[in-house]
Amino acid sequence: MRLLVVNSNTTDSVTGRIAAEARHAAAPGTAVTAVTAPFGLKLIVTASDAQVAGTATLAALGAARGTYDAAIIACFGDPGLEAAKERAGVPVLGISEAAFHAAAMLGRRFGVVSFTRALQPMYEDCLARHGLAGRCAGFRSGSAFSGDPGTVAEDRAAMVLELVDEAARLDGADVVIVAGGPLAGLARTLGPRVAVPLIDGVTAAVALAEALVRLAPTVPRRPPREPAGLDPGLAALFA
Amino acid sequence: MRLLVVNSNTTDSVTGRIAAEARHAAAPGTAVTAVTAPFGLKLIVTASDAQVAGTATLAALGAARGTYDAAIIACFGDPGLEAAKERAGVPVLGISEAAFHAAAMLGRRFGVVSFTRALQPMYEDCLARHGLAGRCAGFRSGSAFSGDPGTVAEDRAAMVLELVDEAARLDGADVVIVAGGPLAGLARTLGPRVAVPLIDGVTAAVALAEALVRLAPTVPRRPPREPAGLDPGLAALFA
Amino acid sequence: MRLLVVNSNTTDSVTGRIAAEARHAAAPGTAVTAVTAPFGLKLIVTASDAQVAGTATLAALGAARGTYDAAIIACFGDPGLEAAKERAGVPVLGISEAAFHAAAMLGRRFGVVSFTRALQPMYEDCLARHGLAGRCAGFRSGSAFSGDPGTVAEDRAAMVLELVDEAARLDGADVVIVAGGPLAGLARTLGPRVAVPLIDGVTAAVALAEALVRLAPTVPRRPPREPAGLDPGLAALFA
Amino acid sequence: MRLLVVNSNTTDSVTGRIAAEARHAAAPGTAVTAVTAPFGLKLIVTASDAQVAGTATLAALGAARGTYDAAIIACFGDPGLEAAKERAGVPVLGISEAAFHAAAMLGRRFGVVSFTRALQPMYEDCLARHGLAGRCAGFRSGSAFSGDPGTVAEDRAAMVLELVDEAARLDGADVVIVAGGPLAGLARTLGPRVAVPLIDGVTAAVALAEALVRLAPTVPRRPPREPAGLDPGLAALFA
Amino acid sequence: MRLLVVNSNTTDSVTGRIAAEARHAAAPGTAVTAVTAPFGLKLIVTASDAQVAGTATLAALGAARGTYDAAIIACFGDPGLEAAKERAGVPVLGISEAAFHAAAMLGRRFGVVSFTRALQPMYEDCLARHGLAGRCAGFRSGSAFSGDPGTVAEDRAAMVLELVDEAARLDGADVVIVAGGPLAGLARTLGPRVAVPLIDGVTAAVALAEALVRLAPTVPRRPPREPAGLDPGLAALFA
Amino acid sequence: MRLLVVNSNTTDSVTGRIAAEARHAAAPGTAVTAVTAPFGLKLIVTASDAQVAGTATLAALGAARGTYDAAIIACFGDPGLEAAKERAGVPVLGISEAAFHAAAMLGRRFGVVSFTRALQPMYEDCLARHGLAGRCAGFRSGSAFSGDPGTVAEDRAAMVLELVDEAARLDGADVVIVAGGPLAGLARTLGPRVAVPLIDGVTAAVALAEALVRLAPTVPRRPPREPAGLDPGLAALFA
Repeated sequence: MRLLVVNSNTTDSVTGRIAAEARHAAAPGTAVTAVTAPFGLKLIVTASDAQVAGTATLAALGAARGTYDAAIIACFGDPGLEAAKERAGVPVLGISEAAFHAAAMLGRRFGVVSFTRALQPMYEDCLARHGLAGRCAGFRSGSAFSGDPGTVAEDRAAMVLELVDEAARLDGADVVIVAGGPLAGLARTLGPRVAVPLIDGVTAAVALAEALVRLAPTVPRRPPREPAGLDPGLAALFA
Repeated sequence: MRLLVVNSNTTDSVTGRIAAEARHAAAPGTAVTAVTAPFGLKLIVTASDAQVAGTATLAALGAARGTYDAAIIACFGDPGLEAAKERAGVPVLGISEAAFHAAAMLGRRFGVVSFTRALQPMYEDCLARHGLAGRCAGFRSGSAFSGDPGTVAEDRAAMVLELVDEAARLDGADVVIVAGGPLAGLARTLGPRVAVPLIDGVTAAVALAEALVRLAPTVPRRPPREPAGLDPGLAALFA
Repeated sequence: MRLLVVNSNTTDSVTGRIAAEARHAAAPGTAVTAVTAPFGLKLIVTASDAQVAGTATLAALGAARGTYDAAIIACFGDPGLEAAKERAGVPVLGISEAAFHAAAMLGRRFGVVSFTRALQPMYEDCLARHGLAGRCAGFRSGSAFSGDPGTVAEDRAAMVLELVDEAARLDGADVVIVAGGPLAGLARTLGPRVAVPLIDGVTAAVALAEALVRLAPTVPRRPPREPAGLDPGLAALFA
Repeated sequence: MRLLVVNSNTTDSVTGRIAAEARHAAAPGTAVTAVTAPFGLKLIVTASDAQVAGTATLAALGAARGTYDAAIIACFGDPGLEAAKERAGVPVLGISEAAFHAAAMLGRRFGVVSFTRALQPMYEDCLARHGLAGRCAGFRSGSAFSGDPGTVAEDRAAMVLELVDEAARLDGADVVIVAGGPLAGLARTLGPRVAVPLIDGVTAAVALAEALVRLAPTVPRRPPREPAGLDPGLAALFA
Repeated sequence: MRLLVVNSNTTDSVTGRIAAEARHAAAPGTAVTAVTAPFGLKLIVTASDAQVAGTATLAALGAARGTYDAAIIACFGDPGLEAAKERAGVPVLGISEAAFHAAAMLGRRFGVVSFTRALQPMYEDCLARHGLAGRCAGFRSGSAFSGDPGTVAEDRAAMVLELVDEAARLDGADVVIVAGGPLAGLARTLGPRVAVPLIDGVTAAVALAEALVRLAPTVPRRPPREPAGLDPGLAALFA
Repeated sequence: MRLLVVNSNTTDSVTGRIAAEARHAAAPGTAVTAVTAPFGLKLIVTASDAQVAGTATLAALGAARGTYDAAIIACFGDPGLEAAKERAGVPVLGISEAAFHAAAMLGRRFGVVSFTRALQPMYEDCLARHGLAGRCAGFRSGSAFSGDPGTVAEDRAAMVLELVDEAARLDGADVVIVAGGPLAGLARTLGPRVAVPLIDGVTAAVALAEALVRLAPTVPRRPPREPAGLDPGLAALFA
């Protein structure tokens, strides 16, 4: 199985981290290709960032069309996800979507922890759109962040650990999502130190994408459209 | 007051219709400028269309930055609306948003009528995102449509009239929204023939935008970002 | 345009404050008339107060029937609002209704701040009835209040300022409503000192009422009834 | 135990019907007094009717203050109920409230049937306010009605029977409420002819009021207020 | 009237406490029989406990079939309640169900207080299933508990008193439920010391069961089934 | 990986069908063991059936404790699921849970189709408990059924096909669940004949269970309890 992983931001070091985690999570027969968004922003924080990142993600999906059996949008707000599902012809999963569903299947109430409060509104809207808000025990986020998204996983590991503990102890979460593309892999590192299962979005998305491909190897595509003025990748997705 | 109206699809005849309706609705001191999306699709129907249209809408808003006191996104799914609100620095309204709020203030339950069932899922998601689903008496839509968006208002006027009647009589709506950019102006034509107030999104957006500018002439902008690879209009919006 | 503003409580100094704010907000062609509830209570705090205030408000609307093109119920719980909409024949807005809709159009999540916790249950019920609870970031209220409603805006200005700051900083509100008829005008005074737009219910109601009159100059009235034993104003509303 | 039953409309024949049904339902030690609203309308249909009826109901409760251990508001939209609960000092139940709670305790999903569609919006709003909408299988209502509220129970018995059958068979209701003060007693007549339990609001309210008085013989009253210009009954309730 | 009370846990001292409270609450003509679950756990805390307790409760109900006119499941999570309602042929009430409905009829928002946080998730799920979450002002619970369920009511009386005060003062509850079978009777003891009505589940269930029996002396049973391998009590319930 | 599949009803031919479908769906390294509920009913239709089936399912899980790396509860209402998750120590999935999550990840709105209307209330409650009701386009069910659960998949294939078409065409479902343990495998047979992806609960559960085992090979167990009077399998689960 060929799995395409799109990092929706333009930070290559984050793409590298995501690719490593995806390959670590993949089953033996799965070949992972990771690409960086062809345009956009270094970190996706707000709705305007996500609007642009969604279109960049579609362009990446279109540019690689025909080369993958499933795709993952590796940015925690799932930019462009619904559009991608309509047009890809194969299963597409967002890492927040995958994390929410995996957590809901593993426990009764899940917590969501991330490294900066600035991301929380986008994550909350994303959760609501996926329809699983009723299963969430709450969000816990770190303070404002202005550092390097490529190393924030290490820089804020201790803070995340504390937030996980609060989610379990104070919010009653029996499984906790470590949210955000830049934190890919951190759940695996911290897992042995906490009492509840930790969910990493990339890992969850890889395992669930492999499952979905077996359940629905093809997904109906919407009828072709004839867009004007789009970059070639984006145009290819609508063809 | 300078009001920018963006038609999020690329059909110039729809832009013309919208512009005419906006100018008809505008107060004496309001100068209306209407622009067509610089790229994208002729009609916005699904989530993938809306994703691209949202980015095109932002590009149009950015290209004209500094030339308007308020803006209207004249496409019924409100593509790019949340992003635009974060970045425009002035009030921005979508025509569905304006229609939902106006209808909610004029009656207890509003119906939503449009010319083709294909648009309904996008409209329902849009309503949910605005948080007003609890005020909606239901949607009623026409059959599949493959004609000219520029003349559908005339072509399907009788069908819309019948759907309005059903919304009032069967769903208990005491106000009805005639939804869709391509139907701009139809509510005004049909209004005298029905017993409930009809809401046109463009008209509602013009009147409410004029009101909001008085309430909040400036709106805080999110901090500038440094995007890469964007077209100049889009880049200007993030500057 | 002739705009009737009804203060639903019996405190004339509050009527004066509301009238001043409404006139300040009104467009050049709008003539504002303000009246005090003909019976009832000095401050509307609980559901039983609101029940009586609603009927008093209807009596005021009926007594002035035919002299206004739109009406505002200037009491934050919107007493009598749904009844008034059924019977007035012209647009009627409550100041909480107007504030909720204006805030929802200007930001993603709004906070609600008021001078005393005693009002919060009534405001929360009011918000739920308008269907916009999903857009609210939370309420923040001052302590118990037993002073003069006519001067509470000045007496508790500092407290309100602090609550606004908490709503923005801790609750993530990107627009904040300063709630309560007795606080009319305070949002305008405090606005320059805070980072988020402040919404005053009276101001919002005036601007939105002017917009609605253009969208629906008349609103269908329910069939006449023949009530028994009502005061003449109330009876006139049902005629 | 002394039980006051207030008919919130001004039709004495409906009061008589309600009183008979309440006495039929009452336990041996319960003395039922029934009163007609001192002012208002012959039938309560819309929100404006209910606003006036609520105040009339409070006036009736205040006029009889001190003479009852519990009270019932015998009008299906429960006009004035929340206000009455704040001020009566003893348990007060609305007949819709009682019917909703009794039905929810007797089955998994209840249907609501009434004699005219005109009442349905008021009943739906009432259900939402009581917070039990999630337990309702749906409403079924007869056509427009312009006859005598005092004899509608007999005139439309066959229609109600058919609606009950549809609620059970098509909506999956396992208990059905026969709604509306003017239908008091009809559930008892029709009960033997249907497969699901039928709930009559007055009967439910009597039985539940007797239960509540044992659970909470007194209920805290809100602090006294000094209203101006109220009729003596209403003023007594606030004293 | 013959009332069967089933303690769903296997602690006989709790059964004794519940029986005493039920008899104290019962009307003169009501004969109370209390039984202990025939198998299961000493205290019901989690979903797995409740699953087993529910089946044990059904076995108790089946073993006594034909000897009661109504039944109460006296365990706060209401284990087996929906199943019992389908099969008993007479009204069955859970003590949490009874407490939620009684509290909702006595106030606008109820608080729920219990002796240990471990029970809270089960109670919250129970409340959601009954559809009354929108009426709840919040839960307040004591710390972890590992003592004797038979004496916890006395051991933690002071803690419960404090939690009741917080529910009223901080959460705005105007009525408070003292939750948990092992706390049966505590509400009656503490009642005189607090400003809001306290609801005891057993007491509420007795009074409401007496009311329901008058409203629906028989309840339709689902068709008989032929289960295999069940204990005789359970089999009797399905016969 | 060792996967235990529990058929919660006592019909061996259904177990056989489920086992065959599970083995067909399993990845090469997965060994499937299927067991029939040790006691209970031939078909699980209502809440009382599900209560007993849940306990029987736990007994089966306990009896086989230590012999599986994940378990599936192969009965569409997911009886005993939450209890099983607390006690199994490994991932446990219900087939409705798996179907709901898989469908939600493959489309925007899923339909649910089953062979008899009698099952619909149980399925709806199950969906609500999983928190995904907001993603469901509606249920469509066949008429009453009194035949052999072991052959209903063949007997009602044509009816199911028609219901799937209605779900897609009338309800707007873009993926459809074929619900019910007795229909295991039918989705695979019908799939080529419909335009939308069909989801089979057993197949979805196998693929997702394999994914979850990789994400969380062990799941925290609740502390051991000392139940009394349970059958040995059940007791083993609590040890």
